Amino acid sequence: MDCALYSAGRRRHRIDDLRTALREAEKEDGFVWIGLVEPTADEFDLLAEGFDLPELAIEDAIRAHQRPKLERYGGVTFAVVKPVHYVDHVEVVEVSELAIFLGDRFVIVVRHGDTTIPALVRTALEADPEMLLHGPPAVLHGILDKAVDQYLDVTAAIDEDLDEIEDQVFGDDPGSDHAERIYKLKREVQQFRRAVVPLVQPLTRLAEDEVPCIPAYARPYFRDVQDHALRAAELIEAADALLTGVMQADLAQVTVEQNRVTVQQNSDMRKISAWAAIAIVPTAIAGIYGMNFDRIPFQHAPHGFSVVVTVIGVVCVGLYVAFRRNRWL
Amino acid sequence: MDCALYSAGRRRHRIDDLRTALREAEKEDGFVWIGLVEPTADEFDLLAEGFDLPELAIEDAIRAHQRPKLERYGGVTFAVVKPVHYVDHVEVVEVSELAIFLGDRFVIVVRHGDTTIPALVRTALEADPEMLLHGPPAVLHGILDKAVDQYLDVTAAIDEDLDEIEDQVFGDDPGSDHAERIYKLKREVQQFRRAVVPLVQPLTRLAEDEVPCIPAYARPYFRDVQDHALRAAELIEAADALLTGVMQADLAQVTVEQNRVTVQQNSDMRKISAWAAIAIVPTAIAGIYGMNFDRIPFQHAPHGFSVVVTVIGVVCVGLYVAFRRNRWL
Amino acid sequence: MDCALYSAGRRRHRIDDLRTALREAEKEDGFVWIGLVEPTADEFDLLAEGFDLPELAIEDAIRAHQRPKLERYGGVTFAVVKPVHYVDHVEVVEVSELAIFLGDRFVIVVRHGDTTIPALVRTALEADPEMLLHGPPAVLHGILDKAVDQYLDVTAAIDEDLDEIEDQVFGDDPGSDHAERIYKLKREVQQFRRAVVPLVQPLTRLAEDEVPCIPAYARPYFRDVQDHALRAAELIEAADALLTGVMQADLAQVTVEQNRVTVQQNSDMRKISAWAAIAIVPTAIAGIYGMNFDRIPFQHAPHGFSVVVTVIGVVCVGLYVAFRRNRWL
Amino acid sequence: MDCALYSAGRRRHRIDDLRTALREAEKEDGFVWIGLVEPTADEFDLLAEGFDLPELAIEDAIRAHQRPKLERYGGVTFAVVKPVHYVDHVEVVEVSELAIFLGDRFVIVVRHGDTTIPALVRTALEADPEMLLHGPPAVLHGILDKAVDQYLDVTAAIDEDLDEIEDQVFGDDPGSDHAERIYKLKREVQQFRRAVVPLVQPLTRLAEDEVPCIPAYARPYFRDVQDHALRAAELIEAADALLTGVMQADLAQVTVEQNRVTVQQNSDMRKISAWAAIAIVPTAIAGIYGMNFDRIPFQHAPHGFSVVVTVIGVVCVGLYVAFRRNRWL
Amino acid sequence: MDCALYSAGRRRHRIDDLRTALREAEKEDGFVWIGLVEPTADEFDLLAEGFDLPELAIEDAIRAHQRPKLERYGGVTFAVVKPVHYVDHVEVVEVSELAIFLGDRFVIVVRHGDTTIPALVRTALEADPEMLLHGPPAVLHGILDKAVDQYLDVTAAIDEDLDEIEDQVFGDDPGSDHAERIYKLKREVQQFRRAVVPLVQPLTRLAEDEVPCIPAYARPYFRDVQDHALRAAELIEAADALLTGVMQADLAQVTVEQNRVTVQQNSDMRKISAWAAIAIVPTAIAGIYGMNFDRIPFQHAPHGFSVVVTVIGVVCVGLYVAFRRNRWL
Repeated sequence: MDCALYSAGRRRHRIDDLRTALREAEKEDGFVWIGLVEPTADEFDLLAEGFDLPELAIEDAIRAHQRPKLERYGGVTFAVVKPVHYVDHVEVVEVSELAIFLGDRFVIVVRHGDTTIPALVRTALEADPEMLLHGPPAVLHGILDKAVDQYLDVTAAIDEDLDEIEDQVFGDDPGSDHAERIYKLKREVQQFRRAVVPLVQPLTRLAEDEVPCIPAYARPYFRDVQDHALRAAELIEAADALLTGVMQADLAQVTVEQNRVTVQQNSDMRKISAWAAIAIVPTAIAGIYGMNFDRIPFQHAPHGFSVVVTVIGVVCVGLYVAFRRNRWL
Repeated sequence: MDCALYSAGRRRHRIDDLRTALREAEKEDGFVWIGLVEPTADEFDLLAEGFDLPELAIEDAIRAHQRPKLERYGGVTFAVVKPVHYVDHVEVVEVSELAIFLGDRFVIVVRHGDTTIPALVRTALEADPEMLLHGPPAVLHGILDKAVDQYLDVTAAIDEDLDEIEDQVFGDDPGSDHAERIYKLKREVQQFRRAVVPLVQPLTRLAEDEVPCIPAYARPYFRDVQDHALRAAELIEAADALLTGVMQADLAQVTVEQNRVTVQQNSDMRKISAWAAIAIVPTAIAGIYGMNFDRIPFQHAPHGFSVVVTVIGVVCVGLYVAFRRNRWL
Repeated sequence: MDCALYSAGRRRHRIDDLRTALREAEKEDGFVWIGLVEPTADEFDLLAEGFDLPELAIEDAIRAHQRPKLERYGGVTFAVVKPVHYVDHVEVVEVSELAIFLGDRFVIVVRHGDTTIPALVRTALEADPEMLLHGPPAVLHGILDKAVDQYLDVTAAIDEDLDEIEDQVFGDDPGSDHAERIYKLKREVQQFRRAVVPLVQPLTRLAEDEVPCIPAYARPYFRDVQDHALRAAELIEAADALLTGVMQADLAQVTVEQNRVTVQQNSDMRKISAWAAIAIVPTAIAGIYGMNFDRIPFQHAPHGFSVVVTVIGVVCVGLYVAFRRNRWL
Repeated sequence: MDCALYSAGRRRHRIDDLRTALREAEKEDGFVWIGLVEPTADEFDLLAEGFDLPELAIEDAIRAHQRPKLERYGGVTFAVVKPVHYVDHVEVVEVSELAIFLGDRFVIVVRHGDTTIPALVRTALEADPEMLLHGPPAVLHGILDKAVDQYLDVTAAIDEDLDEIEDQVFGDDPGSDHAERIYKLKREVQQFRRAVVPLVQPLTRLAEDEVPCIPAYARPYFRDVQDHALRAAELIEAADALLTGVMQADLAQVTVEQNRVTVQQNSDMRKISAWAAIAIVPTAIAGIYGMNFDRIPFQHAPHGFSVVVTVIGVVCVGLYVAFRRNRWL
Repeated sequence: MDCALYSAGRRRHRIDDLRTALREAEKEDGFVWIGLVEPTADEFDLLAEGFDLPELAIEDAIRAHQRPKLERYGGVTFAVVKPVHYVDHVEVVEVSELAIFLGDRFVIVVRHGDTTIPALVRTALEADPEMLLHGPPAVLHGILDKAVDQYLDVTAAIDEDLDEIEDQVFGDDPGSDHAERIYKLKREVQQFRRAVVPLVQPLTRLAEDEVPCIPAYARPYFRDVQDHALRAAELIEAADALLTGVMQADLAQVTVEQNRVTVQQNSDMRKISAWAAIAIVPTAIAGIYGMNFDRIPFQHAPHGFSVVVTVIGVVCVGLYVAFRRNRWL
């Protein structure tokens, strides 16, 4: 649990107990910022009591596996954001989850899974006193902004992998594992979409509607984030559509390649068989003249052998010509 | 028929007749909770009369096979929910149906098919007097909450089966029954979707609109259920899309595998045929020298045999080299 | 033309002329119910004049081939409904058409094609005086209710045929006519959808909006019909999606089956060819020793024959072993 | 340029100059109706000035290639309609374009491409004085009505071609050009859709909203047209979906047919090879006994020949039986 | 940086510093028009200060890679447009980006990538003083108009390539690289769509809503642009759908072609094998009579040879007839 009191744009390190901190926050026009990692219900109890957090939101924050959303419970705004992280060498989109409670004088960020966003935002804001003066909304904006930037990074990484896949599919070596790679990337894109698309609607509300905890002058900043989220969503849809297309193209390529190989092999077989068929003729004719009868026509003729060999030669050449004409050779 | 009077958060066992029960419920600020299993119209008559239930809703409750819905008839709210149950070893989604009549002082739950939800909710509420104090809306919430939790369980089970299918499709053993398994799971997902997706709209109304029988303070609880239903719906859509994708990938895999096997077999055939073609040559040449003519060239030459055998050997080696060059061997 | 005056829940047989009938209907608080089958414009003229029917609606009612719809022309409501009928042995959805004019004191039902709905509704209402008292709206409801019930029947029949198709596609006998059957059923489903889906919107208006000719107390009944129509529409979409899926699965099955058969056949061929290749060796070696030269090595050796035969045997066994190692045998 | 003044339901032939004509139209409560074919900007100048036409609409009318639309510029309504024409023997949907300027006292119809609609509407209205009395809106209605009727004609023609394609695909002769025909018809359907679907929204506005130049009593007539346009749009979507389906079915049919032919051919090959393999055995055995050694076992035995021939026969029969058992013969 | 002051429809060349220019623009009822190419944040600083530009918009304008959009920040309207350019010989859609700041007295156009639109619009407007009088909105309109015209040009170019692809796919030479070409064009179409489709909504707002910086009389001009953008969007969707269709058709064509070639080759093989099988028979029979036994039946018969040869002939003819009957020859 990372917990600090901020006021006048600076971090104050004295957090003794929550109630005192809150009181001080109020007195100094500052706010309390608490970070938690996968807390248990027991760990959360103290916070829930101290900040009067809504029961249902607490449950969501502890259990995780929520959809991205923004909800208002009395004076507390509850948001769920799902940062993503692309592990390129295995082409997996790892989704983590942040649950954020936003009050007038406090912000609580609950992290599930592996994401550096809370730390990054805290560092960035502590380095920017002017921004920090805006209080909890600045924290929410920082987190959303970073998360959406990551979405755009991931779409870029996916696009690169898509390029690689295209090179493989249309490249020289029609290997056998494209379908698997395409499908698995598609599955990751599906999961990624579930993190991004439902966030657009909450961002739209932050940008356009009256969300009580967000001052009106901050809306353009959230609109900017929403715009980037929309762009990420569009890029995800495009990647998904392209993956479907490349799967079809892969199937066509494989079929064409199969066609080419089979046609070549069949053609080879035809040639070999045709040569073999030609070779059988001398065997057959010679075999007939090899029979052990007392009387074989022309057996004693002086040029018998030459005549038969010539006949064999003529038949073979004739067959060769005929096979050529049939395009079998 | 499981029927009891609840008041002050406790179960009272005295249900003599419905009218008296209702009167008592009113007097003691409690409610009557009745559970029925696939009732006939006759069995329902008494209830219909006692609680002044709407005729059309009664018909729906008796006939079942309704869409999930929420309707208001005068003072009675009528809801249809379709719990699901995943039978993993046959990969079948079993859909049951609950029809719920909600009045100020009563709740009637009609069950069709096999679901433990009514029993679970009754047990849970009887163990939670505080919750029970909220009356019929608590029962409705309990049922919806449990049903939606089951939806999420089933999506998880389907995801596991999808993982299995992926392992099969992309695994070492390209068997022949993937298409069937994929298709049948897709069919189950379709049926599952029909249970879940139409429920989102009634849940949205419970969470946002003024549904007369639901007190305003209860809306966040229904919003929570709606959120989970939305998540289930998203996961169902994702599973459906992935099943389509895996079907395509399966087709591609099968084609690639077919390609590989056919190419290997054709290549084997080509090799065997090429060897056979080489072997035919000695037969043919030897056959010619085996003909029974009186005069055969070189017949009496001392090295005739060796020369011909050498010629045969040279021809065979020449063919072998030529075939190698053609990549037939 | 089936034409009668109804009042006080009973049928009165005296229809002399339309104006008198209308006047009497008004006097006795009843209504005139006229049924027509594929009328010509001339036949319709009298009605159009007598009841002051809207010209455009008349045209639609005579020409048929309209979309399902609900329109209001002054005091007259005009509805088009498309009942369907499933001819199971040819798997064809037969669509007929009913045009309905609804006034305060009259209802005119124009039938195109083969449907028993008007007759069924008349029989049912004549047997139910209480229902008949509600006048023309009861007739409209009866027709819509019956039509939507038929939709659900047809979806059930289509589901059965889909089950049959699944059994065929995934069954033991991969025949050749699945694609045709699947496609043709898909075509019927398309046609069926065009009868059902456009009806949902008029039903929604009847259930929710102020349609002047429908009393407010009747709306729940139309909502019930709308609900069933929605269910039918969902089932149609599901059947359509499943038909697409089963077509793909069929293609995969056929490909897999083709794969299996081809692999088996190729494997057989390889075996036969390998055996033949082995058999060629003795022929070739023996052929060489069958050449008619004066001097053949070992010709006069006492065990020449046995040695060569042994060599042949050894070569054959060697080939057999080599082929086994290559998995050609 | 076909230009006339109409008043009191009759055509008056005196058009001297546009301003006079307009003045007279106003005086006599009539209107000026001008028809143009692919005018240049210069030809249009006079009209633009005389009738005070909006500059942007003029540009659209001259350049053509617009989407179907309805726009209001001050007192002038500008509509674009795209009539279609189906050239059956080449299965091509030819799309032409009509730009219509509608004022209180004038209507200008600019035609691009080949369509008889303006002429047909003029003829029909000149024969119907009562209709002509309604002025410019009657012209607009006439054109829209005719265009939409043509849409329905074309959908019917496409359906017929689709039936033909189905007969071909599922017929006895699996030829090779189905894919091309299906695809090209799909392309035409796409083009056709772009003419029809965007027209629905303007028609809805004409039927429901307050379009200033259309009197309220005329709306049902436009609603009628809109209804038919919706029907055409639905039929186009259905045809498109069916073309996709028939393409898939074609692929499945081709694959099945390929399967059948290949299996038959492979089976033939297997049979021929098996017979050849059997025939090789006597050759081999006989070859061995044909070797020229001095001492061959049983050479001098009286029944040596018969024994060997019997052995050969037994081996052949044995092979035949074995091959039958393996289902190679 | 191309920077000028315009007033009274003419270009004035004196831009000393921005503040003076702005003051003068106000005094003379003119405006400042600044063009930038891929500026750095530092280069932008001066402008940001001088014109009081919104910080978030500046960031977007510098970083580029934004979606097409239209945003209002206080007195400044910020628009992003993505012009496209089709490089036909590589079939690539090149997308550039323009960020436009629009104030009452200034317009700033930031260009990223390679597009001539800013230059074209400046030239066109400087040649049209009347248009220039409308100030910044005329610049915005000019850019949007040109961009959308380019979209239509690109759709035409894509349609031509699609025609080429169709000719290839259905042409005489079924080559192997259609899938790649189709897929890659599809990818370009996807990218193109992302430039066009999101622009429709801002154009609709310019055409219909109250966008403060656009005078009401200018809306029809933006509606015209919107109309063309809609047409471009429709053509893009159509091209995308056709590319999907042609990919499927290509697969079908390839399969059919493969079928044809394989069937032909198999048929050839069958023929060759059948002839070879016939030729084996004389070899076998003759081989038997070539065995070196002392006593061979009929060896000494005068017509033994002729009889055996005749038998061989009869067997061969018999086989030939049988093979013909089996359609193997």
